[in-house]
Amino acid sequence: MTSTAAEARFDVLAVGNAIVDVLALTDDAFLDEHGMAKGGMQLIDDVVVHRLYDAMPPGVEVSGGSAANTVVGVASFGGRVAFIGRVADDQLGEVFAHDIRNAGVHFEPVAAAAGGPATARCLILVTPDAQRTMNTYLGASATIGPADIDPELVASAAVLYVEGYLWDQPDAKAAILTAMDASKAAGRKVAFTLSDSFCVDRHRREFLGLLDSHVDILFANEDEICSLFEADTFEEAVEKLNGSVSLACLTRSEKGSMIIESGVQRVGVPAHPVDEVVDTTGAGDLYAAGVLYGLSTGRDLAAAARLGSLAASEIISHLGPRPQRSLSELAVEFDL
Amino acid sequence: MTSTAAEARFDVLAVGNAIVDVLALTDDAFLDEHGMAKGGMQLIDDVVVHRLYDAMPPGVEVSGGSAANTVVGVASFGGRVAFIGRVADDQLGEVFAHDIRNAGVHFEPVAAAAGGPATARCLILVTPDAQRTMNTYLGASATIGPADIDPELVASAAVLYVEGYLWDQPDAKAAILTAMDASKAAGRKVAFTLSDSFCVDRHRREFLGLLDSHVDILFANEDEICSLFEADTFEEAVEKLNGSVSLACLTRSEKGSMIIESGVQRVGVPAHPVDEVVDTTGAGDLYAAGVLYGLSTGRDLAAAARLGSLAASEIISHLGPRPQRSLSELAVEFDL
Repeated sequence: MTSTAAEARFDVLAVGNAIVDVLALTDDAFLDEHGMAKGGMQLIDDVVVHRLYDAMPPGVEVSGGSAANTVVGVASFGGRVAFIGRVADDQLGEVFAHDIRNAGVHFEPVAAAAGGPATARCLILVTPDAQRTMNTYLGASATIGPADIDPELVASAAVLYVEGYLWDQPDAKAAILTAMDASKAAGRKVAFTLSDSFCVDRHRREFLGLLDSHVDILFANEDEICSLFEADTFEEAVEKLNGSVSLACLTRSEKGSMIIESGVQRVGVPAHPVDEVVDTTGAGDLYAAGVLYGLSTGRDLAAAARLGSLAASEIISHLGPRPQRSLSELAVEFDL
Repeated sequence: MTSTAAEARFDVLAVGNAIVDVLALTDDAFLDEHGMAKGGMQLIDDVVVHRLYDAMPPGVEVSGGSAANTVVGVASFGGRVAFIGRVADDQLGEVFAHDIRNAGVHFEPVAAAAGGPATARCLILVTPDAQRTMNTYLGASATIGPADIDPELVASAAVLYVEGYLWDQPDAKAAILTAMDASKAAGRKVAFTLSDSFCVDRHRREFLGLLDSHVDILFANEDEICSLFEADTFEEAVEKLNGSVSLACLTRSEKGSMIIESGVQRVGVPAHPVDEVVDTTGAGDLYAAGVLYGLSTGRDLAAAARLGSLAASEIISHLGPRPQRSLSELAVEFDL
């Protein structure tokens, strides 16, 4: 994570969807009834979001968004972070901006056009097995474009972190490429998360191209990395990775995680124990937070992965994808 | 709880503030810095609500409102309930209406005037001792008035349940009196919660008058009942109650609760054990839910109080004042 570029103002700058999550506890029958693929993320429009919201049980609103959750996690560890994403000038936009800023993240929302779409909402159904199934109305978040990317801000961050989810929107995709080019030009590192196996399915060829051209650090779970390489097993996917990125950080739920350096050195770390798994929303996002914070502080791969497991364990012990405890205090408590 | 009036359509109809809570974990220093009385509720205007929100840590949004929490609790036990309160036509109003309806509560919001105040928000600071300190911007909720009270709806409920907090607004106070008169006229019961010791301080004489003229069932915690009777000890307050209401249901946090019938028969019940107390927001509201549900199903006072303790134990084990588990399932689990 050392860089020959000028000293960085931020450890991580994330570009992602600016979303407020609406989480509700439900059962598998509800998912079946509404035709949802359990554990997945589907995009819905503003008609469906209202219809589904009308049908779902009472909820809890918590700021979310995959990359946003990650930088909030890094901030909770004590890292210096920034976020780029779009909200509307409405109550949920105020909630998102408040929560991310007061978590210690530098965030300057671009003024949204009046009369435009509302702030993004993700309706998340949490089943008794703690699995989350997501239905995202992107709204204002999808209006992000290259103009939102400030090259100076990108150049001031040691790592640029981008979520694959953004690839679904043409303007957002252009924004990512602008940001990745700016990061490369400044001699910084680019980190990318595959986000979702269905998302990988939609964009496999382009994601593989990104790995070759732009990405230094890849985050993925088992399903996503298997989908990317069309592999039947985790081991097969790992073989196919074959050094295409400097660092591949792969999560395997209760089986822990593995970081692979240059396709060669493999570091495996077990999952951090949890009393009761309540809601897995944000588990991967917070794993990435721990790893990125660990690397930014010069820890070795195993120590960074353990911070990732620790952060993930905090997030899955309660409803919602933002930490309810200080991750820096938790790291001290567990001697990490 | 039997009535000579026509068979009731609802077990409980509540009239109260329609509020979305914004809960954040903080420390005692934050309360001191912002001049808050720990454990209390203060009303704030729309300037202060934004200033305080800017200062407070990231939050979680959950529908709240004292009497609204109570009827949601009764619904979760399986009771038939309705709610009267005012929201604005905004995102938080949509959240409030969604959550209360989909919890099984009959709720028909009155269309708010365009350009009027926003939906009520309560900024709640939760300290490490799980105590909650509340700062309420009443907004649209305070615009409730006698016209919101449908006498037929009131007459159709076996019990009218009203929160003392409403007494702070002249129009809301008039609405309460309209509702209480309609309930009495229909031969129904009136239940009233004192809400907050500072609220009792502001309205002591009027609350004492209400007890004599309208209230059949009183809910209060130790501080509130002591404040009402200007008593130094719980025992002194109980002496002074002296049969002024048919039923007084008094909560004493970890010391459990006591129900006093006609100033004579006393039934004490211990607090239901909890692994970890996270946030006491809504504890009194949910105790009332258990008692009201117990009475509506013909249980004796001790059994009703135990349901109250059970519901309170569920609510204090997580952030927010609405149940995250089915209270009817929990009652079965604990053989109540």
